[in-house]
Amino acid sequence: MSKKPSVPKGTRDFSPAEVAKRNYIMQTIKEKFQLFGYQPIETPSFENSETLLGKYGEEGDRLIFKILNSGDYLSKVDDSALREKNSNKISPQISEKALRYDLTVPFARYVVQHQNEITFPFKRYQMQAVWRADRPQKGRFREFWQCDADVVGSKSLWQEVELVQLYDDVFNQLQLKGVTIKINNRKILSGIAEMMGAENKLIDFTVALDKLDKIGEEGVINEMLAKGIEQTAIDKLKPLFSLTGNTEARLSKLRELLAASPTGLEGVDEVAFVVNSVNELGLKASTIELDVTLARGLDYYTGAIFEVAPPQNVQMGSIGGGGRYDDLTGIFGLKGVSGVGISFGLDRIYLVLEELGLFPTTVEENTKVLFINFGEKEALYAQKAIAHLRDNNIPAELYPDAAKMGKQITYADKRNIPFVALAGETEINKSSYTLKNMKTGEQQEVMLNELDDILN
Amino acid sequence: MSKKPSVPKGTRDFSPAEVAKRNYIMQTIKEKFQLFGYQPIETPSFENSETLLGKYGEEGDRLIFKILNSGDYLSKVDDSALREKNSNKISPQISEKALRYDLTVPFARYVVQHQNEITFPFKRYQMQAVWRADRPQKGRFREFWQCDADVVGSKSLWQEVELVQLYDDVFNQLQLKGVTIKINNRKILSGIAEMMGAENKLIDFTVALDKLDKIGEEGVINEMLAKGIEQTAIDKLKPLFSLTGNTEARLSKLRELLAASPTGLEGVDEVAFVVNSVNELGLKASTIELDVTLARGLDYYTGAIFEVAPPQNVQMGSIGGGGRYDDLTGIFGLKGVSGVGISFGLDRIYLVLEELGLFPTTVEENTKVLFINFGEKEALYAQKAIAHLRDNNIPAELYPDAAKMGKQITYADKRNIPFVALAGETEINKSSYTLKNMKTGEQQEVMLNELDDILN
Repeated sequence: MSKKPSVPKGTRDFSPAEVAKRNYIMQTIKEKFQLFGYQPIETPSFENSETLLGKYGEEGDRLIFKILNSGDYLSKVDDSALREKNSNKISPQISEKALRYDLTVPFARYVVQHQNEITFPFKRYQMQAVWRADRPQKGRFREFWQCDADVVGSKSLWQEVELVQLYDDVFNQLQLKGVTIKINNRKILSGIAEMMGAENKLIDFTVALDKLDKIGEEGVINEMLAKGIEQTAIDKLKPLFSLTGNTEARLSKLRELLAASPTGLEGVDEVAFVVNSVNELGLKASTIELDVTLARGLDYYTGAIFEVAPPQNVQMGSIGGGGRYDDLTGIFGLKGVSGVGISFGLDRIYLVLEELGLFPTTVEENTKVLFINFGEKEALYAQKAIAHLRDNNIPAELYPDAAKMGKQITYADKRNIPFVALAGETEINKSSYTLKNMKTGEQQEVMLNELDDILN
Repeated sequence: MSKKPSVPKGTRDFSPAEVAKRNYIMQTIKEKFQLFGYQPIETPSFENSETLLGKYGEEGDRLIFKILNSGDYLSKVDDSALREKNSNKISPQISEKALRYDLTVPFARYVVQHQNEITFPFKRYQMQAVWRADRPQKGRFREFWQCDADVVGSKSLWQEVELVQLYDDVFNQLQLKGVTIKINNRKILSGIAEMMGAENKLIDFTVALDKLDKIGEEGVINEMLAKGIEQTAIDKLKPLFSLTGNTEARLSKLRELLAASPTGLEGVDEVAFVVNSVNELGLKASTIELDVTLARGLDYYTGAIFEVAPPQNVQMGSIGGGGRYDDLTGIFGLKGVSGVGISFGLDRIYLVLEELGLFPTTVEENTKVLFINFGEKEALYAQKAIAHLRDNNIPAELYPDAAKMGKQITYADKRNIPFVALAGETEINKSSYTLKNMKTGEQQEVMLNELDDILN
């Protein structure tokens, strides 16, 4: 192979520094998941195709990575389909497995398959890679990680309250202050649609309304009209244009506006319960805010809808999202199991922490001391100290070759190893070690037990 | 979908208990890797096909999972190849990516691709899933995990010494005593082949010799003759049949036997250096033992060969292996980079720890206390205590619904939650909580700050 090797489009290698930072975020999320009583599960990287196909819409099916059957997979293929060269028709005949596209459908499959072993309500978390054959672009990859927490088997709104607290606790632990947790409710959106008299224009309406800050009231109205929303509907929903003030004030306006829609009022009540409870219990790093334009995953969510915006000084899309779905496991034949969950966007959280300089300097676990190799006898002497240090949980290494001193020091320097230990004839005779601080250049002669104290 | 959903053949779901146990092993290995100065990298789950194909032999190529191209992948396929229905010929035209088959080839690719960012010698570890389209059987899966530590860029034998110590330290930490670390050297095998006058009979020879304990000397000789090994060669190599005693004695016999082979003697010297250094520094949970029948990965290794056997009271194959390869990165155009590495067999280590009852009882991180839900007001009161406990790092949860007491207690019981907290009107008025020990049934009324002490 003559050309330099590379990774497939949309995938990444992670260097030691990157793995350390990613682990720092994932470990923080994981600890909070456990603190809140969520339990980990893991599912296989690939599923039977029938588990995944048809669950994410037509576009989703197209983006699912399919795995070619092993062996002589063509032998059983229908000749006429082959002659037609119809890829869509051939795929199910030559591929029976597909890579995980998200963590939600495999979770639903898991719950149905293991329903007799599970204690409901089942609080589970899952942090694994997913794959999508999307066009790669900045911040969008073909292999990326999802970190999900979901509860299934209870309709209690305390779960929504808790998931908001969970977001807050994670971001607080990551020192990421100023996060906005946006909340909406599918039932409020249904109420708005009822008022409009047109469910199919709902997304156009929320998308246009979301631009209020940018294009002003007139701009929003023009866009709505252009999308075919009727003037009478716009007039009726005008109060949504001035939905300002704190969440309490907004909710009370919304209650008036949706007075004729029982479903809409139910949504208002649900949001009010969650927001009031959350505020009563207190948030540490975030604020919670009603956003009636929030409509992510409309076909999917049936109650609460969440989305998390990073601090305003960062240019970045949402770093998390979620909501309630009333019939997740129905697709696999287990009806009436309500669920609610949230997801953390690992890659974006990484970029935000990087931009704000929020990774702790200690995040890269590193060797504390490099022992210089002066030859076989000295190396064995050094190895005894190294074994001792490792037994005391202090990462230490020997430079493997008796190379020139300068080369060994350069290695310590490039690896950011803070101390170098030297032991030649003189030190061996005195059972001592000369320890050099790589930053200050200071040197001191110490005994083995003193090494622990200095390096710990 | 009417039938119960399932996972693909050879893959597994991991329950909370299984994830906890797997994480315990992986975390232990990871901490030791870092203590020894190894740094983590991660590579994508799939690679460009040309990176993987042709690297594992014909059988390996067959077992690599190939990913179907997206879109209308058939449109560019050669018509005549389609008409022939030749799967092997079509595959490269409809598949450009393949799932990782091991961690070694991606590591070699990584080193070559990032050679200018890497400080050599490069000590890296990697713990990721790999996939093989092998026939599944007990202990063999189509998705499984490898945990590898390798150093590239130095020929120093101190690395071999250190890798033996690393094995020992991991197994010691896992409380797995009585492990045997077998060592051999490709150069000793080359010396034996020279003596036989037939390199291509070497594997037959070692496989037969390995059965000495089981089938006795005569059985071994008969098997060798049946495999076409000449009587004169067997006579010459007879001393290998009585290679007993400690490693020092064995090495000295071997030195006599291989006196005519400079390569063989070099191998003996290398093993002697590693074994003597390891014994001088001391092992905690394992013994190191020369095994001249050890020939794993013969085409691949050029120096040391390692294999780890579990304690003798467990019926199980090797739980780890590795060795030195002198030209790992040559396949990607970077010549002359020597490497040495070891691998831990996660699935088998799991089975061994399970069989010997060596998982700590604390391995499953779990909720410490469940607060019983008596209704909205009581739940809010409970939530305040829960937030306080979580701030003090004590996992706590509220039962989400105001269900019947018995149902809530059953939930705590099934989840193995050790304490249940109750707070109704009486407790709220006194700012107290009634704490019930689920094991003993004891109940006591405590204040919030006392909860921390009891549950910590």
